[in-house]
Parts: sequence; structure tokens; C-alpha cells
Amino acid sequence: MTGYDVARLAGVSQSAVSLALRDSTRISPETKKRILDAVEALGYTPSQVGRSLATRRTGRIGVVTGELLNPFYPALLAPLHDALMASGNCTVLLTTSADGSDEKTDLAPIFDGSLDGVVLTALTVSSPLPGALTRAGIPFVFLNREVDGDDADSCVPDDDGGVQTVVRELVGLGHRRLGMISGPMDVSTARARRASFVRHLADHEIALPDERIVVGSFTHEAGQRGLRQLLGGPHPPTAVFCANDVIALGALDAAAADGIDVPGDVSVVGFDDIAPAGWSVFDLTTVRVNLAAMAAGAAELLVRRIRDKEAAPERRVVATTLARRRTHAAVRG
Amino acid sequence: MTGYDVARLAGVSQSAVSLALRDSTRISPETKKRILDAVEALGYTPSQVGRSLATRRTGRIGVVTGELLNPFYPALLAPLHDALMASGNCTVLLTTSADGSDEKTDLAPIFDGSLDGVVLTALTVSSPLPGALTRAGIPFVFLNREVDGDDADSCVPDDDGGVQTVVRELVGLGHRRLGMISGPMDVSTARARRASFVRHLADHEIALPDERIVVGSFTHEAGQRGLRQLLGGPHPPTAVFCANDVIALGALDAAAADGIDVPGDVSVVGFDDIAPAGWSVFDLTTVRVNLAAMAAGAAELLVRRIRDKEAAPERRVVATTLARRRTHAAVRG
Repeated sequence: MTGYDVARLAGVSQSAVSLALRDSTRISPETKKRILDAVEALGYTPSQVGRSLATRRTGRIGVVTGELLNPFYPALLAPLHDALMASGNCTVLLTTSADGSDEKTDLAPIFDGSLDGVVLTALTVSSPLPGALTRAGIPFVFLNREVDGDDADSCVPDDDGGVQTVVRELVGLGHRRLGMISGPMDVSTARARRASFVRHLADHEIALPDERIVVGSFTHEAGQRGLRQLLGGPHPPTAVFCANDVIALGALDAAAADGIDVPGDVSVVGFDDIAPAGWSVFDLTTVRVNLAAMAAGAAELLVRRIRDKEAAPERRVVATTLARRRTHAAVRG
Repeated sequence: MTGYDVARLAGVSQSAVSLALRDSTRISPETKKRILDAVEALGYTPSQVGRSLATRRTGRIGVVTGELLNPFYPALLAPLHDALMASGNCTVLLTTSADGSDEKTDLAPIFDGSLDGVVLTALTVSSPLPGALTRAGIPFVFLNREVDGDDADSCVPDDDGGVQTVVRELVGLGHRRLGMISGPMDVSTARARRASFVRHLADHEIALPDERIVVGSFTHEAGQRGLRQLLGGPHPPTAVFCANDVIALGALDAAAADGIDVPGDVSVVGFDDIAPAGWSVFDLTTVRVNLAAMAAGAAELLVRRIRDKEAAPERRVVATTLARRRTHAAVRG
């Protein structure tokens, strides 16, 4: 099936078919309708392709996500996919490496004109991707993470508010020697949560020396290593704040393996409230982020941006609350 | 930017542009090259769209997956995405509801010509989708699950071999009163694993009465409920086989919450060996499926099918082994 067959059935020239598919004004509405009817009658193969030529829209959104074996990304991707589908868009999956570096990303589909826009969820602060998207005129939105100095739409959790509730809770329970297992320092969420933790502790005149901050990746393994490193030091912390739940679940896993009682020996607190955090075996105290609301906000910002490339950029901050569960308690004696 | 501009730059008619983009033989290679150069020089918008018209390929594969909050699906999607990317294809995400019923699937992108093929990972045995794909001439492959009576390419785990190793192990440890938490009976993997479990137990002259089979969904909650139901009966089993790891992790979670000792009070065995099964806090004995090999096999079968729609269908069965961990033990004296 070719444009030739369509032209023959509609009784027009092939250029007329081509013009109709591109929604040109140089062809009458009547002729256009006749051609599109012929296209439909013949099941002219990629009808989506024809529609793309007509509307300049593909109905496809690229989602740059981290390693899907890391439980945080499916927790964010699931509601994001639903929100994009609700706005009539397909999700094209583009993954980066587990630690959020851009190296593994296959960028080709982003720049070949097959996407209407891109949601960026896994990037380092110095990623060249947002700049390249801006230069190519491709709409995008930051979700969860942001990039330094880029004035673009974004939908992020209230990192500072969330960390403040953690500090208040732990200090209120008598903890004065705290530790942190942080994410990588080239990722915005890790930077923000660490800076907030240090600052809010300082408000209570509590110092957080560097030896009680372990910097790693946002992974289960980093959580295991981090807890062991913090508890193996000369002055182990009585409470450990983990930069996200994936790290915290790894820390709880190491505690279980090593016979460390949580919260008897050490309190552990996470960030995000992904589903496994609520499982009885973990019952993790954590900062709850409404991931569905955050994903829906990003989808909404991107859809608006696709319609109006000139709109002023908007930064939406999604409120966070503390989910008090079983892994934190008052400091001992 | 329109085909008109391209035609003007290349010094040809618009129909020639249209023919060139469709890779027609009714245009000389020299003219075609001149037109494609003009397309490139002008950055003629959806270059991917133009390429689609030329090759009749979109480079996009749809993946029909279950609810991404269910940890099994990301565990399968991650290697599948990598395998599809390695073969030069993008992954378009299409999800169904958590229990594998087709109702939530947004099928439109499958049938609008925007995909070269489809990987089906979440379907009930009576799903109309494979038949509809066959009638529409859209290549597809079954991954993990299959559908009744459909003679199509598929890549599935050796369910029967895996279940046989479980039965041998548990019976060898003295278990005679066994129970099973099964997946839904309209899903092929659940059916196959239950039938194998009953049959291999019968080989040892052990009966599995219906009251010791709980049928639910492939979810954490079903595992929690299932264990409680089995252990609450008058003759509770000494070992419980779960139709997949997600169910088994739910069962372990219920055991932890209820103070039930695993494996002291009851042995628990899963199927799949997803990453959390190996975490210290669970340390689940389970049937290991090489999900990466299975996903790569499905991608390979689909790529071949796209090239050759007439090839004879192939069914690949991926070997399974028993990962012996901490959740099973000899029956108590």
C-alpha cells in the first residue's frame, strides 16, 4: 500500500495526498477529507505516521529513567506512565545507568523527531542533556531531580521540609550523634537532602562531622555498606538518616544480617515511602512523597509546555510528611 | 518546514520528495540521494517519520507489561528493555492491570501502525489480544506467559522442571503435608506451576487437597493472605510453595508480622529469583529463572519475526534451577 494507491482511490495526484497528510492549507478541506477517507479505506499502513505528518505531534513522550532494577524508578515510572496515558500519550522508555550518570542513555530516539517531549528523572547536575534539548527545541520537564542553572519546568519533592521533619523527630527523641548515608554528590536530590540535614541539625546546635556521612549511590548495596561503615567507627551514630528508601532498605538488610537491632541499637529513617518501606518485615520510618501527585504534576507541566513553548517555566514543589513506623525510637539511656 | 521546501532545495517536484521518502523504485537513486540530502540539510522535521515512510519500520517495540509496582514486572522489563535497545529498538510501555487482566491496557498504540512488533508479558489465557495482532499482521512474541491455542513465538521458563526440583527438595526433607499459594487460574504460569506441583507430589504418592491450595493474584497481599489462610486451617502445611517470589515475599512478610518462624514453623519456597529474594532479610529459597536470558530470547524471536513473518513459530524454554537459601528446612520431628 503506497500513496499512489491512495491517490488513485481518491482521484487526486500524489502531491495532493502528500499535502493532505501534512495538513497543508494549499488543499481544499473537501479534497483533504476525500484523501483521508481513502487513506482509512485502504488501511494505508502507518496511519500514525500520516497523522504525525499532519499534526507534527507523535503522541509519544520519552521518559529518561534510572535502572529499573532499582525499586525507586518503577515506583516513579508507574504513576508517570498512567498520567501520560491519561493525557493521550505513549511512554517511550529511555534508561540511564543505575547511579544516574548519563553514559548508558541511548539518546538517539530523543533527537530523531519521534518524541513530542521528554521527562527527565535520572540525571546528574552537570548533565548536558537539558541544554541539548533546549537547543533542539524539544520540550522537557524535570521530575524529582533537577540540573544546575537550568531554568525549566520541574516537579520535585519538598526535600527541605521533609528533612526538617526527620531532624525534629530524631532530635526530639534525644538523638545527638547522628549519621547519614547520602546519595552521590552530583545528583540534585542527594545534594539537597544532605545540605538540609546538616543545616537543620545546626539549628539545634548539633554538628554532623564528615566521618558520619557516607556518600554512595542510591542503591541497596550502598545502604548495606553505609550502615556497616557508620556502625564500625569509633563513635557510631544512634540514628542514621538515609537519603532514600532504597538505601534505607539496604541498611535494614545489613542490620538483619549482622544481628543489629533496629531501632534498639540504631534508628534508621528513609525518604520517599516506596511500597516495600511499608512491608511488615521493614516497617520503615520515612519521609512520604506523594509520587503519584509528583508524576501527574510533571506530566501536566510537559503537556502544557508542548502546547506553549513560550510559557514561563514553573517549578512545582510537592509537600512531604513523616511516616512514623517501627525503625526509629528514643535514644538509649 | 514542509515537503515543499525540500522539493525546492532539491530542485524536484513534491511528488518526487514523497516517492523518495517512501523509498519508491519509481525514482532514480541519484534523485533520491539529492532529496534525502535536502531533507537533512533543512532538518526536515520528523526525520524519524520520514524514515518510517521509507523503511516501513518504526524502530519501536510495544511491551505489554503488568503493573510496574509489582516487583516482578520491572525485573523482567529491565533486561527486556536492554535487549531491545541492543537490537536498535525503542521500548514503548503498555501496561495492564496488576492481576494480568487485559482491561486496563491502552491498545490504541498497538494498532495505529506506530510499532514494529509487540512483546506480550502480561495476559490471561483467554486474551483476545494475540488473535487481534495476528489478524492485523503485527508481529508479536510471548514472554513468560502464553495463551491457549495460539501457535506463536514464545520464550518461557521451564515451569515443570523448576517445580519438580522444589518437590524433590521438600519431599527429601521429609515434608508430606504441603500447601500452595497459587496465582490466578486464567494465567498460564499459574496454571502450569499448580498442575506440575500436584503431579510431581502424586509421583511421591502425596495428595494435595484443594483446601491446601489458595488461589489469588501474583501480589504481595495475596501472599500475606495466603499464608494466614493456610496456617489457620485444621491441618496446616509444613511447607508452602508460592507460585512466584512476589507471593512468597508477601508470605514471609505475614510470617514476620505474626511471629511465625520460617523455616522453623513452616518452609516457604518461591519462583523466579527476583533481586529482593536474595536480600538478607528474606533470603528466600526459590526457583531461579534467568530473566535476562529469557528476555533476550524473546527479543531475538521478535526481531526475527519482524524480518520474516512466514518463519515457523518457535517455543523456547529457559532452564530453571533451585536457589537453596534460608527459608526451607527439614520437617520437624
